[in-house]
Amino acid sequence: MSIKDTVNKAGSKWMDGTGPDNDIVISSRIRVARNISGYPFPHFMKETEAEQVFHAVQMAVADKDLVTEVGKLEVTNLAELTDNERMILVEKHLVSPQHVENPSNRAVVITADESVSIMVNEEDHLRIQCLQPGLQLEETWDLADKIDDLLEKSLDFSFCEKRGYLTSCPTNVGTGLRASVMLHLPCLVMGKQVGKIMHAISQLGLAVRGYYGEGTEAHGNLFQVSNQVTMGQTEEEIVKNLLTVTRQIVAQERATREALLRDNRNFLEDKIHRAFGAMKYARMMTTREALNNFSDLRLGIELGILQELTYGQINELIMLSTPAFLSKSAGHSLKSEERDWYRAETIRKQLTKIQI
Amino acid sequence: MSIKDTVNKAGSKWMDGTGPDNDIVISSRIRVARNISGYPFPHFMKETEAEQVFHAVQMAVADKDLVTEVGKLEVTNLAELTDNERMILVEKHLVSPQHVENPSNRAVVITADESVSIMVNEEDHLRIQCLQPGLQLEETWDLADKIDDLLEKSLDFSFCEKRGYLTSCPTNVGTGLRASVMLHLPCLVMGKQVGKIMHAISQLGLAVRGYYGEGTEAHGNLFQVSNQVTMGQTEEEIVKNLLTVTRQIVAQERATREALLRDNRNFLEDKIHRAFGAMKYARMMTTREALNNFSDLRLGIELGILQELTYGQINELIMLSTPAFLSKSAGHSLKSEERDWYRAETIRKQLTKIQI
Repeated sequence: MSIKDTVNKAGSKWMDGTGPDNDIVISSRIRVARNISGYPFPHFMKETEAEQVFHAVQMAVADKDLVTEVGKLEVTNLAELTDNERMILVEKHLVSPQHVENPSNRAVVITADESVSIMVNEEDHLRIQCLQPGLQLEETWDLADKIDDLLEKSLDFSFCEKRGYLTSCPTNVGTGLRASVMLHLPCLVMGKQVGKIMHAISQLGLAVRGYYGEGTEAHGNLFQVSNQVTMGQTEEEIVKNLLTVTRQIVAQERATREALLRDNRNFLEDKIHRAFGAMKYARMMTTREALNNFSDLRLGIELGILQELTYGQINELIMLSTPAFLSKSAGHSLKSEERDWYRAETIRKQLTKIQI
Repeated sequence: MSIKDTVNKAGSKWMDGTGPDNDIVISSRIRVARNISGYPFPHFMKETEAEQVFHAVQMAVADKDLVTEVGKLEVTNLAELTDNERMILVEKHLVSPQHVENPSNRAVVITADESVSIMVNEEDHLRIQCLQPGLQLEETWDLADKIDDLLEKSLDFSFCEKRGYLTSCPTNVGTGLRASVMLHLPCLVMGKQVGKIMHAISQLGLAVRGYYGEGTEAHGNLFQVSNQVTMGQTEEEIVKNLLTVTRQIVAQERATREALLRDNRNFLEDKIHRAFGAMKYARMMTTREALNNFSDLRLGIELGILQELTYGQINELIMLSTPAFLSKSAGHSLKSEERDWYRAETIRKQLTKIQI
């Protein structure tokens, strides 16, 4: 298993569609920001300092106990990858878009199953990320916590008794923790209840974002909910709070689904099968339409209307439909219209196996 | 072959999709209005008079020479049919909607292939109609003319030297002739040229209507073009005029198709395949959407994009999707939403045979 495998395959463990509450919760994510004492934050670093941090991390992740815990962690200097390979890492949520902007002395550390990735020299020296399918926030936090402890054996993290972990951006100071879940809420959107719920969530110190993170729209009825506040609460409290709220949203989405299925079954069956028909026959498809159709197909699985498909297949198709994967399979970068053509073709080919 | 066969099968000779210019011209139709001397027009008739006209026509259509010419003509009293069977005759364009409103002493005379139908006691005593697939106006007129002559052997048609044939409505006086063609003009509609062309046509003494005749919208890009004026021109001139104009429209539609195919092939391929996908997967479909999808499928055949389908199949599907045929196959009358469900199911079932 190498970074080449990672950029060649569309699937990841976090996308396999399993896990608790997988009818609504796509994935759970924990991200911990850490910085190494004695070095300026990445934005203010000299090349040599960045290099030293890179090497320190390289040593730290080779720790035997850490490897026993999470498997081999492969370190890749982003400069060694092509532009498109870096974009694939972004699409797979293994690195941030900002991280690949200037790849020099920036690195990513990834396990074979891609459930752990560490960005080196992004906004902070280390951004440790753990991703799991379904609603597994506590389990994912436990894993991140262990990795943090094991890295701390050889790395001296900047820590202040009063403020906690120090980070480049003040919004991360304290725990340095960002916990998030990716939710699929088609029926709350259809029932026009999602706005109200999201407003309520923001009152609880949580933030709501679209599929591609901060500032993005919620295409495909996918919502990312995460903690806003990283200070004044323990990690366990932050995780527990998000878990409780997520369970409430899950319950509301399920109740709305049941009501819709009871009162508007024909409408739902029509909508879901039409999405499948469009996916199976269209010759051009934008990202936005594809995500909306994927949402309908996913709902079809959830409601037992499309029993021939799995969540894992949908997640893989979403990945294969991204500009980065499309360019990869075309062998060259694609212009907008050409990309829509390739996207439709890719989806069509994948769905020829599915007879509905 | 009996009237029961006519109301049981969706196809007709005029719908078989053959004939000259069948890529654009669905069918050619000639209708001749005639009245029998000595009887008031149907609206002013007594029951006994209507009965006498009915019997006179019954005798006339049994004429040996006529049967040799067009085949057996079956006379059916509309009162003997169910409401739904009468509606099927309307959908098949064999009788007018007005003709079935009050079926008493009204009749229809139909040949086995349905290319000849005579309405008895509609607005006029006789409305002789000949329908052929493709652009065959002169041939269709020749047939109607022969039938007219052969009926005149035993029926004394009201005729005035100055005005010509007398009819119930002044707009038909003279030749009593209405010649029309049903045209499929998707690319002129897409290119927004159809309005201009139709306006020009109306300046030439021709009328443009939708699929269901006078006062109906042009759903499915289907336009019926016919002569407005029945007086002051010979039958041959009327037919020739319509034929010339039709050939010009056909040429314009073809030129627009070629231009679209050259400049927007991806767009067309997408649109046509999406229509097929919707037809193959939708669970609910309105008449309007069905006609628009049929239009795309027909265009797909015309452009060689959907080679697995035939015009005849599309025409049969249009017929099977009508409320009358849907009610027939359901075995009871259907409410709007239920009908949309049955329509989608019917189309889906028919298309399972087609692998694209």
